[in-house]
Amino acid sequence: MKYLRIGHPGEEVPAVLHENRYYDLSDATRDIDGAFLGRGGISTTAGFPEIDIAGRRIAPPIAKPSAIVCIGMNYAAHCAESGAEPPAEPVVFYKHPNTIVGPNDNVEIPRASTRTDWEVELGVVFKQRASYLESEEAALECIAGFLVANDLSEREFQIERSGGQFSKGKACPTFTPLGPHLITPDEIEDVQALRMWSKVNGEIRQDSNSKDMIFSVARIIHHMSQFMAFDAGDLLLTGTPEGVALSGRFPYLEAGDVVSVGIEGLGSTRNTALDAK
Amino acid sequence: MKYLRIGHPGEEVPAVLHENRYYDLSDATRDIDGAFLGRGGISTTAGFPEIDIAGRRIAPPIAKPSAIVCIGMNYAAHCAESGAEPPAEPVVFYKHPNTIVGPNDNVEIPRASTRTDWEVELGVVFKQRASYLESEEAALECIAGFLVANDLSEREFQIERSGGQFSKGKACPTFTPLGPHLITPDEIEDVQALRMWSKVNGEIRQDSNSKDMIFSVARIIHHMSQFMAFDAGDLLLTGTPEGVALSGRFPYLEAGDVVSVGIEGLGSTRNTALDAK
Repeated sequence: MKYLRIGHPGEEVPAVLHENRYYDLSDATRDIDGAFLGRGGISTTAGFPEIDIAGRRIAPPIAKPSAIVCIGMNYAAHCAESGAEPPAEPVVFYKHPNTIVGPNDNVEIPRASTRTDWEVELGVVFKQRASYLESEEAALECIAGFLVANDLSEREFQIERSGGQFSKGKACPTFTPLGPHLITPDEIEDVQALRMWSKVNGEIRQDSNSKDMIFSVARIIHHMSQFMAFDAGDLLLTGTPEGVALSGRFPYLEAGDVVSVGIEGLGSTRNTALDAK
Repeated sequence: MKYLRIGHPGEEVPAVLHENRYYDLSDATRDIDGAFLGRGGISTTAGFPEIDIAGRRIAPPIAKPSAIVCIGMNYAAHCAESGAEPPAEPVVFYKHPNTIVGPNDNVEIPRASTRTDWEVELGVVFKQRASYLESEEAALECIAGFLVANDLSEREFQIERSGGQFSKGKACPTFTPLGPHLITPDEIEDVQALRMWSKVNGEIRQDSNSKDMIFSVARIIHHMSQFMAFDAGDLLLTGTPEGVALSGRFPYLEAGDVVSVGIEGLGSTRNTALDAK
């Protein structure tokens, strides 16, 4: 299934895309959230009314999660461009859940920012609590689906303004574009073999593959579940490959730039950057 | 007002303590959450039925927040015992909101832990969105109330297992005891002059005062609002003073230990540590 949400903030309608038609899931659930995903979502579109999405906002494909858990430094070439050694174990930080926006919404360059950067990431959404999991196989059982995320990052805030703690440059308003869809695992042949890319004004920036992760999705979830509990509806971002502005190879974002990120089979985002009011 | 919540997890009843009597606020709100606090809570207990709390669980005094934002290294003597320099600006990290527990609930020492530590902290709860605030006075206007928090921390996870990113040692299940009450600002004469302490098995560990914060509550909120948006119901933890086990002066927590933290005028917690199952 390809779940999505349609409508203005606070008025989103749960929907599904199936064989090029969109269906309204309001009769099945109030939202694409942990409770809905925890009971297995829907198994058929039969009986749901079609919905016309023309001209309507595509929202983030999931309700606001109770946490956004992020893995840093999970691609060796990105570690190198960031001036860091590949980590021995997953490095974790959090983003405020109020940072999520839709795949085509505007994003804001923070008022004091000079170094707003992009990061294409594979996002994982949970359908059940994951705590002290016994195996990587058990980790995969907890996954509701996958999505495309842009982990926007202000590099001065992240690296220089918070004693090295990343979250200060990660949780600025609008810094987590998601979507367009939440794709269930049965629609992805191999989540560790997906091309991933980012573009600014149509020019390629990142161009990599999820096979280059240092720690696989299953390994991250199994490992992190020894340190925390994921809840149904939570969002895990699994790190970004090389090709960000922090490398020095590209300019940082400016107002008017269009930043896109995409993952093979999951779709893409396209957000215009504006200066924060 | 002194708000609190009574009952088992998932069945908490909103309540208020006033002149030694407890009142059930179910007729005014479903929970002590951002919506209730945003509309000003209650101004009188008149008309609310009394509630008998004898033998009942005291829950965390607020509903699960959408984020727990934490300030690290905010007391100079704690920086020194941690081997760090005092920061030039607030250092921020996050805890997963699913870590909150009540003031007398059991807490869990994680399975792989050898260094579970305590941190008494002044907690601040928001009643409105705080973004790009213009002054420290405007920051104070956003505060719904204050509470006592224990920012439990696994030091190996925090310092050695996540490339220096703190959250891996901060978000273990049950790691954020809160309460017993959320106290509105009108009941606190000077939030920057409150004695704070922690004890293990009745022996004093931390014994300090909120006047020793490097960055005041108002300064933290004003500053952080330039980097993120707080939402109504969010919880901000403002850092811990010296006297934690990380200093080397005290042993880390073991199963069976009773850890208490308290702040003058806000009450105290008393949690028994057990090994995680």
